[in-house]
Amino acid sequence: MKTAAVILAGCGAKDGSEIHEATMALYALAKEGFEVSIFAPDTDSRDVIDHITDRPVNERRNVMTEAARIARGAIAPLSSLDPSGYDALVLPGGFGAAKNLFTLAVDGLDFSVLPQVRDAVLAFHKAGKPIGAMCISPVMIAALLGDKGVEVTFGPESDMCAAAREKFGAGVTVCDRDGAITDRTNRVVTTPCYMYGDSSIAQIGDGAIAMVKGIKSLIG
Amino acid sequence: MKTAAVILAGCGAKDGSEIHEATMALYALAKEGFEVSIFAPDTDSRDVIDHITDRPVNERRNVMTEAARIARGAIAPLSSLDPSGYDALVLPGGFGAAKNLFTLAVDGLDFSVLPQVRDAVLAFHKAGKPIGAMCISPVMIAALLGDKGVEVTFGPESDMCAAAREKFGAGVTVCDRDGAITDRTNRVVTTPCYMYGDSSIAQIGDGAIAMVKGIKSLIG
Repeated sequence: MKTAAVILAGCGAKDGSEIHEATMALYALAKEGFEVSIFAPDTDSRDVIDHITDRPVNERRNVMTEAARIARGAIAPLSSLDPSGYDALVLPGGFGAAKNLFTLAVDGLDFSVLPQVRDAVLAFHKAGKPIGAMCISPVMIAALLGDKGVEVTFGPESDMCAAAREKFGAGVTVCDRDGAITDRTNRVVTTPCYMYGDSSIAQIGDGAIAMVKGIKSLIG
Repeated sequence: MKTAAVILAGCGAKDGSEIHEATMALYALAKEGFEVSIFAPDTDSRDVIDHITDRPVNERRNVMTEAARIARGAIAPLSSLDPSGYDALVLPGGFGAAKNLFTLAVDGLDFSVLPQVRDAVLAFHKAGKPIGAMCISPVMIAALLGDKGVEVTFGPESDMCAAAREKFGAGVTVCDRDGAITDRTNRVVTTPCYMYGDSSIAQIGDGAIAMVKGIKSLIG
Protein backbone atom coordinates (compact mmCIF):
# COMPACT_ATOMS: atom_id res chain seq x y z
CA MET A 1 0.00 0.00 0.00
CA LYS A 2 1.23 3.48 -0.86
CA THR A 3 1.38 6.14 1.83
CA ALA A 4 0.83 9.87 1.74
CA ALA A 5 1.43 12.67 4.22
CA VAL A 6 -1.07 15.54 4.17
CA ILE A 7 -0.23 18.88 5.80
CA LEU A 8 -3.18 20.92 7.09
CA ALA A 9 -3.25 24.51 8.31
CA GLY A 10 -6.39 24.63 10.44
CA CYS A 11 -10.06 24.15 9.56
CA GLY A 12 -11.85 26.62 7.31
CA ALA A 13 -11.06 28.47 4.09
CA LYS A 14 -10.53 31.90 5.63
CA ASP A 15 -8.09 31.10 8.46
CA GLY A 16 -7.23 27.43 7.96
CA SER A 17 -7.24 24.69 5.36
CA GLU A 18 -10.04 24.89 2.82
CA ILE A 19 -12.37 22.12 4.01
CA HIS A 20 -13.64 20.95 0.62
CA GLU A 21 -10.13 20.74 -0.81
CA ALA A 22 -8.76 18.88 2.21
CA THR A 23 -11.69 16.47 2.41
CA MET A 24 -11.78 15.75 -1.31
CA ALA A 25 -8.02 15.11 -1.30
CA LEU A 26 -8.45 12.65 1.58
CA TYR A 27 -11.32 10.96 -0.27
CA ALA A 28 -9.34 10.72 -3.52
CA LEU A 29 -6.25 9.39 -1.72
CA ALA A 30 -8.32 6.71 0.02
CA LYS A 31 -10.04 5.75 -3.24
CA GLU A 32 -6.65 5.34 -4.93
CA GLY A 33 -5.48 3.09 -2.11
CA PHE A 34 -3.22 5.44 -0.18
CA GLU A 35 -2.81 5.12 3.55
CA VAL A 36 -2.80 8.71 4.78
CA SER A 37 -1.21 10.43 7.77
CA ILE A 38 -2.21 13.99 8.59
CA PHE A 39 0.08 16.62 10.08
CA ALA A 40 -0.23 20.26 11.13
CA PRO A 41 1.96 22.78 12.93
CA ASP A 42 1.31 22.81 16.67
CA THR A 43 1.13 26.61 16.81
CA ASP A 44 -1.43 29.35 17.24
CA SER A 45 -3.30 30.23 14.08
CA ARG A 46 -2.28 33.63 12.72
CA ASP A 47 -5.88 34.74 13.08
CA VAL A 48 -9.41 33.48 13.57
CA ILE A 49 -11.91 34.69 10.98
CA ASP A 50 -15.70 34.66 11.30
CA HIS A 51 -16.63 32.82 8.11
CA ILE A 52 -19.96 34.68 7.81
CA THR A 53 -18.79 38.27 8.35
CA ASP A 54 -15.21 37.75 7.09
CA ARG A 55 -14.03 39.72 10.12
CA PRO A 56 -11.29 38.65 12.54
CA VAL A 57 -12.53 37.69 15.98
CA ASN A 58 -10.63 38.02 19.24
CA GLU A 59 -9.88 34.35 19.83
CA ARG A 60 -6.84 32.10 19.85
CA ARG A 61 -7.07 28.73 18.17
CA ASN A 62 -4.32 26.17 17.68
CA VAL A 63 -3.67 25.13 14.08
CA MET A 64 -3.26 21.41 14.85
CA THR A 65 -6.24 21.29 17.22
CA GLU A 66 -8.51 22.87 14.61
CA ALA A 67 -7.09 20.75 11.77
CA ALA A 68 -7.97 17.71 13.90
CA ARG A 69 -11.62 18.49 13.08
CA ILE A 70 -10.90 17.56 9.46
CA ALA A 71 -8.69 14.65 10.57
CA ARG A 72 -11.24 13.30 13.10
CA GLY A 73 -8.51 13.44 15.74
CA ALA A 74 -5.96 11.38 13.78
CA ILE A 75 -3.29 14.05 13.46
CA ALA A 76 0.31 14.56 14.50
CA PRO A 77 2.51 17.62 14.92
CA LEU A 78 4.25 18.64 11.73
CA SER A 79 7.55 18.42 13.62
CA SER A 80 7.11 14.63 13.66
CA LEU A 81 6.77 14.26 9.86
CA ASP A 82 9.57 12.04 8.55
CA PRO A 83 9.54 12.25 4.73
CA SER A 84 11.31 8.89 4.47
CA GLY A 85 8.15 7.21 5.72
CA TYR A 86 5.85 8.38 2.90
CA ASP A 87 5.51 7.97 -0.85
CA ALA A 88 3.87 11.34 -1.50
CA LEU A 89 3.10 14.71 0.07
CA VAL A 90 -0.19 16.60 -0.35
CA LEU A 91 -0.80 20.26 0.49
CA PRO A 92 -4.42 21.47 0.39
CA GLY A 93 -5.07 25.21 0.10
CA GLY A 94 -7.11 27.85 1.90
CA PHE A 95 -6.11 31.26 3.20
CA GLY A 96 -4.91 29.51 6.35
CA ALA A 97 -2.26 27.72 4.30
CA ALA A 98 -1.10 31.14 3.11
CA LYS A 99 -1.05 32.41 6.69
CA ASN A 100 0.04 29.48 8.85
CA LEU A 101 2.29 27.46 6.48
CA PHE A 102 3.69 30.36 4.50
CA THR A 103 3.00 34.08 4.71
CA LEU A 104 1.70 35.04 1.27
CA ALA A 105 -1.57 36.41 2.68
CA VAL A 106 0.45 38.79 4.88
CA ASP A 107 3.65 39.52 2.98
CA GLY A 108 2.70 39.04 -0.68
CA LEU A 109 5.32 37.34 -2.86
CA ASP A 110 8.07 38.26 -0.37
CA PHE A 111 6.56 35.56 1.85
CA SER A 112 8.53 33.22 4.06
CA VAL A 113 7.80 29.50 4.44
CA LEU A 114 7.54 27.76 7.80
CA PRO A 115 10.86 25.85 8.11
CA GLN A 116 9.10 22.53 8.81
CA VAL A 117 7.04 22.94 5.65
CA ARG A 118 10.02 24.02 3.54
CA ASP A 119 12.10 21.10 4.80
CA ALA A 120 9.31 18.63 4.04
CA VAL A 121 8.79 19.93 0.50
CA LEU A 122 12.51 19.91 -0.26
CA ALA A 123 12.98 16.43 1.22
CA PHE A 124 10.13 14.90 -0.81
CA HIS A 125 11.40 16.63 -3.94
CA LYS A 126 14.98 15.50 -3.38
CA ALA A 127 13.80 11.93 -2.88
CA GLY A 128 11.86 12.05 -6.15
CA LYS A 129 8.56 11.58 -4.33
CA PRO A 130 5.47 13.27 -5.77
CA ILE A 131 4.12 16.45 -4.23
CA GLY A 132 0.50 17.48 -4.78
CA ALA A 133 -0.56 21.06 -4.09
CA MET A 134 -3.98 22.69 -4.33
CA CYS A 135 -5.35 26.22 -4.74
CA ILE A 136 -2.91 28.75 -3.22
CA SER A 137 -0.31 26.19 -2.05
CA PRO A 138 1.33 25.89 -5.51
CA VAL A 139 2.59 29.47 -5.04
CA MET A 140 4.78 28.14 -2.24
CA ILE A 141 5.95 25.31 -4.49
CA ALA A 142 6.83 27.89 -7.15
CA ALA A 143 9.00 29.71 -4.61
CA LEU A 144 10.70 26.59 -3.23
CA LEU A 145 11.25 24.81 -6.54
CA GLY A 146 11.34 27.71 -9.00
CA ASP A 147 15.11 27.26 -9.38
CA LYS A 148 14.36 23.74 -10.63
CA GLY A 149 12.02 25.16 -13.26
CA VAL A 150 8.92 23.68 -11.64
CA GLU A 151 5.67 24.07 -13.53
CA VAL A 152 2.50 24.71 -11.54
CA THR A 153 -0.95 26.25 -11.80
CA PHE A 154 -2.60 28.73 -9.53
CA GLY A 155 -5.81 29.16 -11.40
CA PRO A 156 -6.60 31.83 -13.97
CA GLU A 157 -3.90 34.03 -15.43
CA SER A 158 -3.29 36.95 -13.06
CA ASP A 159 -0.76 39.54 -11.99
CA MET A 160 0.40 37.04 -9.37
CA CYS A 161 1.12 34.43 -12.04
CA ALA A 162 3.24 36.94 -13.94
CA ALA A 163 5.02 38.11 -10.80
CA ALA A 164 5.73 34.54 -9.70
CA ARG A 165 7.25 33.67 -13.08
CA GLU A 166 9.48 36.71 -12.80
CA LYS A 167 10.45 36.36 -9.15
CA PHE A 168 10.80 32.58 -8.80
CA GLY A 169 11.56 31.39 -12.32
CA ALA A 170 8.71 28.92 -12.10
CA GLY A 171 6.47 27.96 -14.99
CA VAL A 172 2.97 29.10 -14.13
CA THR A 173 0.23 27.85 -16.39
CA VAL A 174 -3.54 27.83 -16.58
CA CYS A 175 -5.55 24.70 -15.87
CA ASP A 176 -9.21 23.76 -16.13
CA ARG A 177 -11.21 24.19 -12.96
CA ASP A 178 -11.65 20.43 -12.55
CA GLY A 179 -8.22 19.37 -13.78
CA ALA A 180 -4.64 19.15 -12.58
CA ILE A 181 -1.30 19.65 -14.26
CA THR A 182 1.61 17.32 -13.77
CA ASP A 183 5.27 18.37 -13.93
CA ARG A 184 6.77 14.94 -14.57
CA THR A 185 10.36 16.17 -14.21
CA ASN A 186 9.86 17.68 -10.79
CA ARG A 187 7.12 15.20 -9.84
CA VAL A 188 4.73 17.96 -8.81
CA VAL A 189 0.96 17.88 -9.44
CA THR A 190 -1.15 21.01 -8.90
CA THR A 191 -4.87 21.79 -9.17
CA PRO A 192 -6.42 25.28 -9.06
CA CYS A 193 -9.48 24.69 -6.84
CA TYR A 194 -10.90 27.89 -5.38
CA MET A 195 -8.30 30.09 -7.07
CA TYR A 196 -11.23 30.24 -9.45
CA GLY A 197 -13.57 32.09 -7.12
CA ASP A 198 -16.64 30.74 -8.90
CA SER A 199 -15.69 27.06 -8.96
CA SER A 200 -18.27 24.61 -7.68
CA ILE A 201 -17.49 21.95 -5.10
CA ALA A 202 -18.00 19.42 -7.93
CA GLN A 203 -15.03 20.99 -9.74
CA ILE A 204 -12.97 21.10 -6.54
CA GLY A 205 -13.62 17.42 -5.96
CA ASP A 206 -12.86 16.44 -9.53
CA GLY A 207 -9.66 18.52 -9.43
CA ALA A 208 -8.60 16.73 -6.25
CA ILE A 209 -9.30 13.38 -7.89
CA ALA A 210 -7.28 14.45 -10.96
CA MET A 211 -4.41 15.54 -8.72
CA VAL A 212 -4.32 12.22 -6.88
CA LYS A 213 -4.48 10.25 -10.13
CA GLY A 214 -1.53 12.36 -11.30
CA ILE A 215 0.39 11.51 -8.13
CA LYS A 216 -0.41 7.84 -8.56
CA SER A 217 0.78 7.91 -12.18
CA LEU A 218 4.13 9.28 -11.00
CA ILE A 219 4.55 6.53 -8.45
CA GLY A 220 3.59 3.86 -11.00
CA MET B 1 -32.29 22.59 -11.86
CA LYS B 2 -33.23 20.74 -8.69
CA THR B 3 -32.63 22.33 -5.32
CA ALA B 4 -31.66 20.91 -1.96
CA ALA B 5 -31.53 22.32 1.55
CA VAL B 6 -28.74 21.00 3.78
CA ILE B 7 -28.89 21.46 7.57
CA LEU B 8 -25.55 21.62 9.39
CA ALA B 9 -24.86 21.53 13.12
CA GLY B 10 -21.42 23.10 13.40
CA CYS B 11 -18.02 22.02 12.05
CA GLY B 12 -16.35 18.88 13.35
CA ALA B 13 -17.45 15.32 14.16
CA LYS B 14 -17.31 15.64 17.93
CA ASP B 15 -19.33 18.83 18.50
CA GLY B 16 -20.66 19.73 15.06
CA SER B 17 -21.42 18.24 11.67
CA GLU B 18 -19.07 15.49 10.58
CA ILE B 19 -16.93 17.28 7.99
CA HIS B 20 -16.38 14.37 5.59
CA GLU B 21 -20.08 13.52 5.52
CA ALA B 22 -21.15 17.13 4.99
CA THR B 23 -18.52 17.81 2.33
CA MET B 24 -19.13 14.58 0.44
CA ALA B 25 -22.88 15.24 0.48
CA LEU B 26 -22.28 18.73 -0.96
CA TYR B 27 -19.96 17.25 -3.60
CA ALA B 28 -22.47 14.54 -4.55
CA LEU B 29 -25.36 17.03 -4.70
CA ALA B 30 -23.35 19.34 -6.98
CA LYS B 31 -22.31 16.42 -9.21
CA GLU B 32 -25.96 15.40 -9.59
CA GLY B 33 -26.91 18.93 -10.57
CA PHE B 34 -28.53 20.17 -7.38
CA GLU B 35 -28.36 23.81 -6.40
CA VAL B 36 -27.75 23.72 -2.66
CA SER B 37 -28.60 26.09 0.17
CA ILE B 38 -27.07 25.51 3.58
CA PHE B 39 -28.76 26.26 6.90
CA ALA B 40 -27.84 25.95 10.58
CA PRO B 41 -29.40 27.03 13.85
CA ASP B 42 -28.13 30.43 14.99
CA THR B 43 -27.50 29.24 18.54
CA ASP B 44 -24.60 28.40 20.82
CA SER B 45 -23.19 24.94 20.31
CA ARG B 46 -24.00 22.61 23.20
CA ASP B 47 -20.30 22.15 23.77
CA VAL B 48 -16.89 22.64 22.16
CA ILE B 49 -14.73 19.50 22.03
CA ASP B 50 -10.98 19.38 21.47
CA HIS B 51 -10.81 16.92 18.58
CA ILE B 52 -7.39 15.61 19.66
CA THR B 53 -8.01 15.02 23.37
CA ASP B 54 -11.80 14.44 23.09
CA ARG B 55 -12.22 16.72 26.10
CA PRO B 56 -14.63 19.66 26.34
CA VAL B 57 -12.97 23.06 26.34
CA ASN B 58 -14.27 26.19 28.01
CA GLU B 59 -15.32 28.10 24.90
CA ARG B 60 -18.55 29.24 23.33
CA ARG B 61 -18.99 28.82 19.60
CA ASN B 62 -22.06 29.57 17.51
CA VAL B 63 -23.43 26.63 15.49
CA MET B 64 -24.13 28.68 12.35
CA THR B 65 -20.83 30.58 12.50
CA GLU B 66 -18.85 27.34 12.75
CA ALA B 67 -20.96 25.59 10.09
CA ALA B 68 -20.10 28.53 7.81
CA ARG B 69 -16.58 27.06 7.66
CA ILE B 70 -17.99 24.11 5.75
CA ALA B 71 -20.32 26.38 3.76
CA ARG B 72 -17.56 28.91 2.90
CA GLY B 73 -19.78 31.64 4.34
CA ALA B 74 -22.83 30.81 2.22
CA ILE B 75 -25.19 29.90 5.03
CA ALA B 76 -28.49 31.13 6.45
CA PRO B 77 -30.21 30.72 9.80
CA LEU B 78 -32.33 27.60 10.01
CA SER B 79 -35.28 29.83 10.97
CA SER B 80 -35.29 31.10 7.36
CA LEU B 81 -35.63 27.65 5.75
CA ASP B 82 -38.85 27.51 3.72
CA PRO B 83 -39.43 23.89 2.67
CA SER B 84 -41.61 25.01 -0.25
CA GLY B 85 -38.48 26.37 -1.94
CA TYR B 86 -36.57 23.07 -2.15
CA ASP B 87 -36.90 19.69 -3.79
CA ALA B 88 -35.01 17.73 -1.14
CA LEU B 89 -33.61 17.94 2.39
CA VAL B 90 -30.23 16.52 3.47
CA LEU B 91 -29.06 15.98 7.05
CA PRO B 92 -25.38 15.04 7.55
CA GLY B 93 -24.35 13.42 10.82
CA GLY B 94 -21.75 13.95 13.51
CA PHE B 95 -22.12 14.11 17.28
CA GLY B 96 -22.97 17.79 16.86
CA ALA B 97 -26.12 16.79 14.98
CA ALA B 98 -27.04 14.62 17.98
CA LYS B 99 -26.36 17.56 20.34
CA ASN B 100 -27.41 20.69 18.47
CA LEU B 101 -30.24 19.45 16.21
CA PHE B 102 -31.60 16.76 18.50
CA THR B 103 -30.46 15.60 21.91
CA LEU B 104 -29.63 11.89 21.48
CA ALA B 105 -26.04 12.37 22.68
CA VAL B 106 -27.36 13.82 25.92
CA ASP B 107 -30.73 12.17 26.54
CA GLY B 108 -30.47 8.83 24.74
CA LEU B 109 -33.60 7.68 22.89
CA ASP B 110 -35.76 10.01 25.00
CA PHE B 111 -34.24 12.83 22.97
CA SER B 112 -36.08 15.93 21.82
CA VAL B 113 -35.75 17.47 18.36
CA LEU B 114 -35.13 21.18 17.78
CA PRO B 115 -38.54 22.50 16.65
CA GLN B 116 -37.10 24.10 13.49
CA VAL B 117 -35.56 20.77 12.50
CA ARG B 118 -38.69 18.78 13.34
CA ASP B 119 -40.88 21.21 11.37
CA ALA B 120 -38.55 21.02 8.35
CA VAL B 121 -38.48 17.21 8.34
CA LEU B 122 -42.26 16.94 8.69
CA ALA B 123 -42.87 19.57 6.00
CA PHE B 124 -40.60 17.87 3.45
CA HIS B 125 -42.16 14.51 4.27
CA LYS B 126 -45.71 15.85 4.00
CA ALA B 127 -44.89 17.40 0.63
CA GLY B 128 -43.52 14.07 -0.63
CA LYS B 129 -40.04 15.55 -1.05
CA PRO B 130 -37.06 13.27 -0.45
CA ILE B 131 -35.11 13.46 2.79
CA GLY B 132 -31.53 12.17 2.98
CA ALA B 133 -29.96 11.46 6.35
CA MET B 134 -26.46 10.28 7.23
CA CYS B 135 -24.77 8.52 10.17
CA ILE B 136 -26.61 9.35 13.41
CA SER B 137 -29.26 11.62 11.81
CA PRO B 138 -31.46 8.69 10.71
CA VAL B 139 -32.21 8.05 14.40
CA MET B 140 -34.03 11.37 14.43
CA ILE B 141 -35.89 10.38 11.26
CA ALA B 142 -36.89 7.11 12.95
CA ALA B 143 -38.38 9.11 15.83
CA LEU B 144 -40.19 11.67 13.66
CA LEU B 145 -41.49 9.25 11.01
CA GLY B 146 -41.64 5.99 12.93
CA ASP B 147 -45.44 6.21 13.03
CA LYS B 148 -45.33 6.18 9.22
CA GLY B 149 -43.31 2.96 9.29
CA VAL B 150 -40.20 4.62 7.94
CA GLU B 151 -37.26 2.33 7.15
CA VAL B 152 -33.76 3.62 7.86
CA THR B 153 -30.25 2.43 8.63
CA PHE B 154 -27.96 3.51 11.38
CA GLY B 155 -25.08 1.25 10.67
CA PRO B 156 -24.41 -2.15 12.20
CA GLU B 157 -27.03 -3.97 14.24
CA SER B 158 -26.90 -2.69 17.81
CA ASP B 159 -28.90 -2.28 21.00
CA MET B 160 -29.89 1.15 19.69
CA CYS B 161 -31.36 -0.37 16.53
CA ALA B 162 -33.45 -2.76 18.61
CA ALA B 163 -34.53 -0.02 21.00
CA ALA B 164 -35.46 2.31 18.15
CA ARG B 165 -37.62 -0.37 16.50
CA GLU B 166 -39.40 -0.88 19.80
CA LYS B 167 -39.77 2.76 20.81
CA PHE B 168 -40.51 4.43 17.46
CA GLY B 169 -41.98 1.64 15.35
CA ALA B 170 -39.45 2.36 12.64
CA GLY B 171 -37.85 -0.28 10.45
CA VAL B 172 -34.13 -0.27 11.20
CA THR B 173 -31.99 -2.27 8.84
CA VAL B 174 -28.31 -2.87 8.13
CA CYS B 175 -26.59 -1.37 5.12
CA ASP B 176 -23.16 -1.71 3.53
CA ARG B 177 -20.61 0.89 4.61
CA ASP B 178 -20.58 2.51 1.17
CA GLY B 179 -24.26 2.12 0.37
CA ALA B 180 -27.59 3.72 1.14
CA ILE B 181 -31.09 2.39 1.62
CA THR B 182 -34.15 3.99 0.10
CA ASP B 183 -37.62 3.90 1.63
CA ARG B 184 -39.60 4.65 -1.51
CA THR B 185 -42.90 4.98 0.35
CA ASN B 186 -41.67 7.60 2.78
CA ARG B 187 -39.13 9.00 0.30
CA VAL B 188 -36.30 8.73 2.82
CA VAL B 189 -32.71 7.74 1.92
CA THR B 190 -30.18 6.92 4.65
CA THR B 191 -26.50 5.97 4.69
CA PRO B 192 -24.55 4.70 7.70
CA CYS B 193 -21.25 6.62 7.36
CA TYR B 194 -19.23 6.72 10.57
CA MET B 195 -21.80 4.67 12.52
CA TYR B 196 -19.30 2.05 11.39
CA GLY B 197 -16.40 3.34 13.46
CA ASP B 198 -13.86 1.76 11.13
CA SER B 199 -15.24 3.10 7.85
CA SER B 200 -12.79 4.83 5.55
CA ILE B 201 -13.43 8.23 4.05
CA ALA B 202 -13.70 6.43 0.70
CA GLN B 203 -16.72 4.55 2.06
CA ILE B 204 -18.20 7.74 3.54
CA GLY B 205 -17.90 9.45 0.18
CA ASP B 206 -19.35 6.56 -1.76
CA GLY B 207 -22.21 6.32 0.74
CA ALA B 208 -22.95 10.02 0.28
CA ILE B 209 -22.93 9.56 -3.49
CA ALA B 210 -25.29 6.56 -3.15
CA MET B 211 -27.61 8.62 -0.93
CA VAL B 212 -27.78 11.48 -3.40
CA LYS B 213 -28.38 9.10 -6.32
CA GLY B 214 -31.23 7.63 -4.25
CA ILE B 215 -32.67 11.09 -3.69
CA LYS B 216 -32.40 11.87 -7.38
CA SER B 217 -34.15 8.61 -8.30
CA LEU B 218 -37.08 9.62 -6.09
CA ILE B 219 -37.39 13.02 -7.75
CA GLY B 220 -37.19 11.44 -11.20
